Amino acid sequence: MKTATSRKEAVVNGVNVDELFKTLDTVKKKTAVAKFVFRADNAWVDGGHNRTSIRNFYGAGAEDTTRKTPFILDADEPKVLLGTDRGANPVEYVLTALAGCLTTSLVYHAAARGIAIDEVESHLEGDLDLRGFLGISEEVRNGYENIRVSFKIKADASEGQLRELVQLAQQRSPVFDIVSHPVPVSVELKNDS
Amino acid sequence: MKTATSRKEAVVNGVNVDELFKTLDTVKKKTAVAKFVFRADNAWVDGGHNRTSIRNFYGAGAEDTTRKTPFILDADEPKVLLGTDRGANPVEYVLTALAGCLTTSLVYHAAARGIAIDEVESHLEGDLDLRGFLGISEEVRNGYENIRVSFKIKADASEGQLRELVQLAQQRSPVFDIVSHPVPVSVELKNDS
Repeated sequence: MKTATSRKEAVVNGVNVDELFKTLDTVKKKTAVAKFVFRADNAWVDGGHNRTSIRNFYGAGAEDTTRKTPFILDADEPKVLLGTDRGANPVEYVLTALAGCLTTSLVYHAAARGIAIDEVESHLEGDLDLRGFLGISEEVRNGYENIRVSFKIKADASEGQLRELVQLAQQRSPVFDIVSHPVPVSVELKNDS
Repeated sequence: MKTATSRKEAVVNGVNVDELFKTLDTVKKKTAVAKFVFRADNAWVDGGHNRTSIRNFYGAGAEDTTRKTPFILDADEPKVLLGTDRGANPVEYVLTALAGCLTTSLVYHAAARGIAIDEVESHLEGDLDLRGFLGISEEVRNGYENIRVSFKIKADASEGQLRELVQLAQQRSPVFDIVSHPVPVSVELKNDS
């Protein structure tokens, strides 16, 4: 039987590693447990301002209703893009998603390998040419032409191990995959339902 | 000379259409004005919890420092994904970005065409199989396998015009492009700087 002390040691980087390996085993045995459906509801407010509400999702074989209140996220455009600046703009939300996902992937996979992390910081930049959105040039894409991410990490690990973790984060991060590879998106008008 | 009333009429859907067409003309004459660089800074907090700060960006030929305070966005994972649920998770931030961008693209392009919008609501769902992140199966991708978006729109427009707007939003939205087509992402460890 584990003592309280050894039980405490099963948490690395704030991640319960016992639970992580248990999840891994469960998913290996029953792949349906791995299926998740995440959701968002958005309502336009005015001009470039709109509001997203995030709450329930489906995952681990059941509807998850543990969140008591939704997360409310305002998006807007800065003044130079004719908005009222009530929130980060949608392409800034993409950088937020990418930063968060690479960091979590790095921290969780470090935990699984028993590497204790002290600090992770990242800086992201994305190049966007407005001619795409404005429909001025069909040769210019609408979205980011490039995204650059740089990490600073303090951890009980060698430089080589840290580079491996940065690689692993890219190999496993869902948002890194979403941004760097195509995702099929279907959009429909559903005014009748 | 325009009267105050006619000046007011140049705002459609909260978008200053005079400014929109002025921007369009400026960018056509001087393409460098269209170049934007958006940025995000993220710091890990604990476990699946990390925090992004969004503030200055480069655009319209200059560094934009009009934002007095940064937008602070917390990301975390729900309990079933071993987090403490202090914020939406990174893949939910992707849906937030996509919803906001499609909506803004739709509203701005409707404004440019003089179509007055009353309401825009959208519901998004993304299918994600955790086996990718966990590294259990190389045949399963890490990110969303599919994203479905449905819009409800009330506007002074025919059903056909609304369908056209939904098409136009997809054709012009930067985040729709980012999600549905590959973006090159470079990630580096920069512990020395």
